[in-house]
Amino acid sequence: MNYNLSQVPERTSQPREEGLTMVMDKGLSVREVENMISVSQPHIDIVKLGWATSFVTPNLDEKLAVYRAANIPVYFGGTLFEAFVVRNQFDDFRRLLDRYKLSYAEVSDGSVDMHQDEKCEYIRTLAKEVTVLSEVGSKDEEKIIPPYKWIQLMKSELEAGAWKVIGEAREAGNVGLFRSSGEVRQGLVEEILTQIPNEKILWEAPQKAQQVWFVKLLGANVNLGNIASNDIIPLETIRLGLRGDTFSHFLNQETKQKWKLSAK
Amino acid sequence: MNYNLSQVPERTSQPREEGLTMVMDKGLSVREVENMISVSQPHIDIVKLGWATSFVTPNLDEKLAVYRAANIPVYFGGTLFEAFVVRNQFDDFRRLLDRYKLSYAEVSDGSVDMHQDEKCEYIRTLAKEVTVLSEVGSKDEEKIIPPYKWIQLMKSELEAGAWKVIGEAREAGNVGLFRSSGEVRQGLVEEILTQIPNEKILWEAPQKAQQVWFVKLLGANVNLGNIASNDIIPLETIRLGLRGDTFSHFLNQETKQKWKLSAK
Amino acid sequence: MNYNLSQVPERTSQPREEGLTMVMDKGLSVREVENMISVSQPHIDIVKLGWATSFVTPNLDEKLAVYRAANIPVYFGGTLFEAFVVRNQFDDFRRLLDRYKLSYAEVSDGSVDMHQDEKCEYIRTLAKEVTVLSEVGSKDEEKIIPPYKWIQLMKSELEAGAWKVIGEAREAGNVGLFRSSGEVRQGLVEEILTQIPNEKILWEAPQKAQQVWFVKLLGANVNLGNIASNDIIPLETIRLGLRGDTFSHFLNQETKQKWKLSAK
Repeated sequence: MNYNLSQVPERTSQPREEGLTMVMDKGLSVREVENMISVSQPHIDIVKLGWATSFVTPNLDEKLAVYRAANIPVYFGGTLFEAFVVRNQFDDFRRLLDRYKLSYAEVSDGSVDMHQDEKCEYIRTLAKEVTVLSEVGSKDEEKIIPPYKWIQLMKSELEAGAWKVIGEAREAGNVGLFRSSGEVRQGLVEEILTQIPNEKILWEAPQKAQQVWFVKLLGANVNLGNIASNDIIPLETIRLGLRGDTFSHFLNQETKQKWKLSAK
Repeated sequence: MNYNLSQVPERTSQPREEGLTMVMDKGLSVREVENMISVSQPHIDIVKLGWATSFVTPNLDEKLAVYRAANIPVYFGGTLFEAFVVRNQFDDFRRLLDRYKLSYAEVSDGSVDMHQDEKCEYIRTLAKEVTVLSEVGSKDEEKIIPPYKWIQLMKSELEAGAWKVIGEAREAGNVGLFRSSGEVRQGLVEEILTQIPNEKILWEAPQKAQQVWFVKLLGANVNLGNIASNDIIPLETIRLGLRGDTFSHFLNQETKQKWKLSAK
Repeated sequence: MNYNLSQVPERTSQPREEGLTMVMDKGLSVREVENMISVSQPHIDIVKLGWATSFVTPNLDEKLAVYRAANIPVYFGGTLFEAFVVRNQFDDFRRLLDRYKLSYAEVSDGSVDMHQDEKCEYIRTLAKEVTVLSEVGSKDEEKIIPPYKWIQLMKSELEAGAWKVIGEAREAGNVGLFRSSGEVRQGLVEEILTQIPNEKILWEAPQKAQQVWFVKLLGANVNLGNIASNDIIPLETIRLGLRGDTFSHFLNQETKQKWKLSAK
């Protein structure tokens, strides 16, 4: 931090298990990655190369080298995993992780119907080789999964070896955890949290109002994902109570009372 | 492509007549252009310097030199053409193309009422000197042009010498081809396609849902324009069926049946 | 300007009292600032480091040096001032301005309820040391301040020594001067202008439609703020009547009549 302010919540330190910021790279150039790292490195915990953007991105090796040099883990978006699986190319996918020296991978079923046993089998297989993030939730806004089912899926995927389970939101933040308007499905989130430890979940929350909502519910060190590269710094201020939206959230009672901020 | 995936549609190769991606540059710096080219060159077919942004952009010569070195054609947005015409400065506009060594130009009437004969005369004149793109559709959302009129305009402008006709959408994607909500005027598009060859049309489609709609209707090699610089890679994945939105579109029947994806 | 066009309104020259463009930097890297300056310097009058982003931005000294070398004044967003004040750290805030050699500061009460006398006292104190911008309007969309109160606040803050008063809009443009839809509170703006000189007000207007509205009401040289770094060039074209939205606004009567543009 550049200067001292009291009443700022303590952040966990890297490498983190809680308070992760997962950044979405949907096709940054090598220099753009360098720019992002130069200004956000302490706040980036892991990067996802969105869906199959890695397929068509020139200079991929060079880009991955920049991330590696900065000690930032990178993984391919789950849609790429699914694209390989539906084409009967799962072994090619494993070779791909090897070729690009990736030590993280995402398993998801956002675009296909996959039996839970099969999905867990993929998790088990990959978990022997890399750290697995598994994602729950459909990209199809009409496919509403009830809360008890979310819980059951998350539990079994963690048991199969997933490091974290991701709550789906897409790049836009309008499916899965959220209504098509972007509004949080609050009851869903609260019910999940009665059964799954918060630190095991990485909530995709690309929109500012969504990030604010999770920070207010779960504190500065909630795991949040699908953060755009130019929203990393803004998110960090939201976590610390230093943006208007969470301005009073971490202040102590005395300060809140003096400034009549208790109602916020 | 960085690795092999089966069941991916074949893209035309550059220089293209079909499958063009036209990128909107609304004031990028020289280094931003270099960054964009470094990560997107194989996917950029032509660049438009949006409306009259070239009037106020420093280092314009240097920027154009970067595009030229990458063999990417550049043209001034149609609003600049119109700005010169209403000021009786059409000859200055021609000299401008010459001074900046531009070999493409856009003729449009999005902000003015111009008689069709006059517009075609401008097309004929410019077509002797440069490759002309002519744009149909008003920037005024209250000015609805009926389908038969779109067709008549497009036909006469192609006959006058336009290389492609552009369907207007603005930077925001909320006029012309689209309703103010961004929704495609589907009947309009379908009626146009009964009369005008698809490869002669460049559809402005800045929003993701619009790009998805056109790829589903017309395939990977549809001409799309007004693509933001950070949406070039995402668009390429949409074209190839490698983003959630078009995930199952290019899969073969066997794969679709096995994964029950036929309904999508 | 890169070429000649007639009927383009005259812009004031830098350093300006009227026609200011205030840019919002919400966490740009040093190289991104260099890029922005290279393409927009003649159009950037002052930069705000949004809210408390400066707290978590690495290389802050280096970034400020880049702005300083380009003669672009920089100030911390008002939320940072408020964050120091509620923590009883106002003297630390003054030392911070000193340490970072900032000669501008913002005083605001967007996230707290501050008595007007107290706010004016802060303005008076800071105005002895730096140039003060003071902001009126709440970040809370439910806190509607009536027009007469806006006027009273603006008057007393200017009397207390503020160089300009800022009309609040947030980064999103959905509070203060605007309804939550982003629509301008026209009656409010018009009533303010009956009492406060236009050149003393800096209107936050991050959305294009808001910028267009102010340019149409107050001309090319209206002070506008919270402009995103990639909207500086577009805004300049709006000011000059060279984007579709203001295309006919600055044309002379003869031209408007000839092209039947008078109704626009």
